[in-house]
Amino acid sequence: MDLVADFLSRLVTQFQSPALAFLIGGMALAAFRSQLEIPDAIYKFAVFMLLMRIGIEGGLEIRDASFAEMLLPALVTIALGCLIVLLGRFTLAYLPGVKMEDAIATAGLFGAVSASTLAAAMVILEEEDIFYEAWVPALYPFMDIPALVLAIVLANLHLAKQDGASGNGPKIWSIIKDSLRGSALSALILGLALGLLTRPEQVFEGFYDPLFRGLLSILMLIMGMEAYQRLNELRKVAHWYAVYAFAAPLTHGLIAFGLGYLLHVTTGFSPGGVVLLSVLAGSSSDISGPPTLRAAIPTANPSSYIGSSTSIGTPVAIAIGIPLYLALAQMVF
Amino acid sequence: MDLVADFLSRLVTQFQSPALAFLIGGMALAAFRSQLEIPDAIYKFAVFMLLMRIGIEGGLEIRDASFAEMLLPALVTIALGCLIVLLGRFTLAYLPGVKMEDAIATAGLFGAVSASTLAAAMVILEEEDIFYEAWVPALYPFMDIPALVLAIVLANLHLAKQDGASGNGPKIWSIIKDSLRGSALSALILGLALGLLTRPEQVFEGFYDPLFRGLLSILMLIMGMEAYQRLNELRKVAHWYAVYAFAAPLTHGLIAFGLGYLLHVTTGFSPGGVVLLSVLAGSSSDISGPPTLRAAIPTANPSSYIGSSTSIGTPVAIAIGIPLYLALAQMVF
Amino acid sequence: MDLVADFLSRLVTQFQSPALAFLIGGMALAAFRSQLEIPDAIYKFAVFMLLMRIGIEGGLEIRDASFAEMLLPALVTIALGCLIVLLGRFTLAYLPGVKMEDAIATAGLFGAVSASTLAAAMVILEEEDIFYEAWVPALYPFMDIPALVLAIVLANLHLAKQDGASGNGPKIWSIIKDSLRGSALSALILGLALGLLTRPEQVFEGFYDPLFRGLLSILMLIMGMEAYQRLNELRKVAHWYAVYAFAAPLTHGLIAFGLGYLLHVTTGFSPGGVVLLSVLAGSSSDISGPPTLRAAIPTANPSSYIGSSTSIGTPVAIAIGIPLYLALAQMVF
Repeated sequence: MDLVADFLSRLVTQFQSPALAFLIGGMALAAFRSQLEIPDAIYKFAVFMLLMRIGIEGGLEIRDASFAEMLLPALVTIALGCLIVLLGRFTLAYLPGVKMEDAIATAGLFGAVSASTLAAAMVILEEEDIFYEAWVPALYPFMDIPALVLAIVLANLHLAKQDGASGNGPKIWSIIKDSLRGSALSALILGLALGLLTRPEQVFEGFYDPLFRGLLSILMLIMGMEAYQRLNELRKVAHWYAVYAFAAPLTHGLIAFGLGYLLHVTTGFSPGGVVLLSVLAGSSSDISGPPTLRAAIPTANPSSYIGSSTSIGTPVAIAIGIPLYLALAQMVF
Repeated sequence: MDLVADFLSRLVTQFQSPALAFLIGGMALAAFRSQLEIPDAIYKFAVFMLLMRIGIEGGLEIRDASFAEMLLPALVTIALGCLIVLLGRFTLAYLPGVKMEDAIATAGLFGAVSASTLAAAMVILEEEDIFYEAWVPALYPFMDIPALVLAIVLANLHLAKQDGASGNGPKIWSIIKDSLRGSALSALILGLALGLLTRPEQVFEGFYDPLFRGLLSILMLIMGMEAYQRLNELRKVAHWYAVYAFAAPLTHGLIAFGLGYLLHVTTGFSPGGVVLLSVLAGSSSDISGPPTLRAAIPTANPSSYIGSSTSIGTPVAIAIGIPLYLALAQMVF
Repeated sequence: MDLVADFLSRLVTQFQSPALAFLIGGMALAAFRSQLEIPDAIYKFAVFMLLMRIGIEGGLEIRDASFAEMLLPALVTIALGCLIVLLGRFTLAYLPGVKMEDAIATAGLFGAVSASTLAAAMVILEEEDIFYEAWVPALYPFMDIPALVLAIVLANLHLAKQDGASGNGPKIWSIIKDSLRGSALSALILGLALGLLTRPEQVFEGFYDPLFRGLLSILMLIMGMEAYQRLNELRKVAHWYAVYAFAAPLTHGLIAFGLGYLLHVTTGFSPGGVVLLSVLAGSSSDISGPPTLRAAIPTANPSSYIGSSTSIGTPVAIAIGIPLYLALAQMVF
């Protein structure tokens, strides 16, 4: 019962931690119908700064890391991204009132990654002085892209079968290019390249890094407001989406924790790295995923996948997922 | 004559202090018809940051303060907010060429509070190492809300009497809710709640606090540009508005200074706290007040109340009010 | 051959320096058709912050500097601004396929100054611990205004001659006023005045200065994206614009280096000052120049002057110009 006690005490502590406190604060503001608005330009800039910070630090670390060390975790990350989509395809899709392409789009979004959730976990690990290999956050695209690509391919295969029309198959390479061109992955890869190839230490330490926590708190606030506002959309679709949105982040996180534990035993992957891998798997995309899916699977209903991810998936991934993996790590390692 | 000499020397010094210098710089730019524009998103973000900083610090302090210590100052603050509105209702409203509902709206705006003026005074007190109880800025809503509510109730009573139509009276609770939902009070209360209930120290010290002075300088610049641009509007209404806008901030500030002095003698309220209380009373709302009044008293002419507050009230409250209360405090305490 | 070796080694180093790295990163993003966008509000705010930082520091320094010390460099700066426009007027304008007013507008833009290019050079000098008189960046308007005014006057003279219509001559004073009112010079002059007349040290050191490098990196990114996107426009006009845009920054920079060297010998102007003077001359305006020219020479084709300046002029001025002047300074001083 140590796990339960530890988890509960972490849960209470985390409700006081800025990341979660701002998320809940945002929900409370929206519930109270506050007119507070964070300008969209600030939101976009904060997301850019977050991804640049993650990217640059990742790039700086990869420069020093051995490529071999990263190879296996990267492969596991790709596998996780695909596994999450397949899981959704073969569970959610068969529930009553759920359309196949909506289910696949939802699974794609839960397979993709949220930079803000990842950043919240990084800040908490740093606050608790738990070490992680600094290249772990740079695994982001290794989960994000395969999940989105697989979801879009599966959805198109399904639609093509339905239409009876074959040919005109999904162009995998163009989906990958579109993902990479999206603003989130562009910023992350730019940061990675700058960290890897140039000397951005000074501007990183004087600008991108110190503004990281503060801008994250603002993003959490916005996400909280969005989560509450999207609840209405979720009410319009089958209740199974709410069930999935609650269970999926924790299921995915725990599967990742298991695989991460195997990596720890075999390759010495750090406990902090295992926690971050679980957070990556448990998070669902809030920035680049929705527009990508909307463009690529136009027949899927955005209320289903954006509603479940923003209103339930993200709060669960942050408020329950992060303390759960931390408590598990405490117990296991 | 020490007071006069001290006030004048402070006035000269303050014209070199950043807060006032940026305000005057903004006026000069507008007078020169400069095309410089600070994007609206930056303005809104700066206001949000200011209020969060005031709120979080207030919340952190209230956590440690004794509730009893705050009770009397809070009651005095509420009384001041109401008194300012009543004063305007029974002076400005009877001047020639002044419509009753315009007068009440103007008095409501001068009773409400300006976060930027308050912040400018806080920075000056900190620069001069003058102590104040850190929960004093958190008295903001105790003056802001009663003033706006009373003004709206009085205006509606007047309009109802005029129409002969009774019933349909002003719904006080809905006015209070609307005030609390406005972006300014929402941000302040969010900050207070975060400071009181969570552990935002790190994000406060690393983000909200260090950016405070800089963003204030930008707000002062914008307020200076606005003050000059609104002068034209003021020319369209009765000259008595200009007289009121000049005299009211100082009158209100001096009344508050007197009441603050009584608090000092009876409860040991700090001299810095007395100065801030005077600044609160002397300031007029520039962010949340105008839209609230516009929605609640639609027949009142915005040129009268926004013009007087922005063009004359705020510059007087900052440039004359703050050094005046400081000089008084120097002499009295 | 030391010069060449030194220049090449600096060139390689600079490709790793943040300023250039972000510029190239922006080009790469645009070439890859990334959807990353930095909100316009952030761009405008970053430009404002850059100019305020340059202005305030300049003002603080001019306060302490002897006026006599600045007089000669200021005159040389004015002369350089005029010389660059005349050079363009009598070379570019006579090349095949080049319209006279387009040539004059282009020369005006290359005579005017880029705050971002200047800021990039300042950061590099500071990183290499090379001293420069801190008022040198404040020479900005002494080159910017004469160049724009002369270009507009020459273009109007040409158009008037063409039309046969005399009278209605260019109103020099109104052109100067329009330049000063533009957002770039307004911000710079506001900063200068604040630095000269007030005590902004604290807000400068706590806000404007520390955010300088970080915001510069974001501006460089945007300029890189713009440079690539404008290449298409350049393809629509005569190829001679590309030749001019490549040769002019370096020619202007080298002329300025020569004149700066004379100032060094006669008045002890610092080597770092000579480098910055060369960068001022080699840069072309990216913020305030284009709209000023568009309004004042409406018949000139913006594709010619904006295309050459943004796509070729600025990258050359930063990537080749800055290391070239540094290598020259290393050799000469």
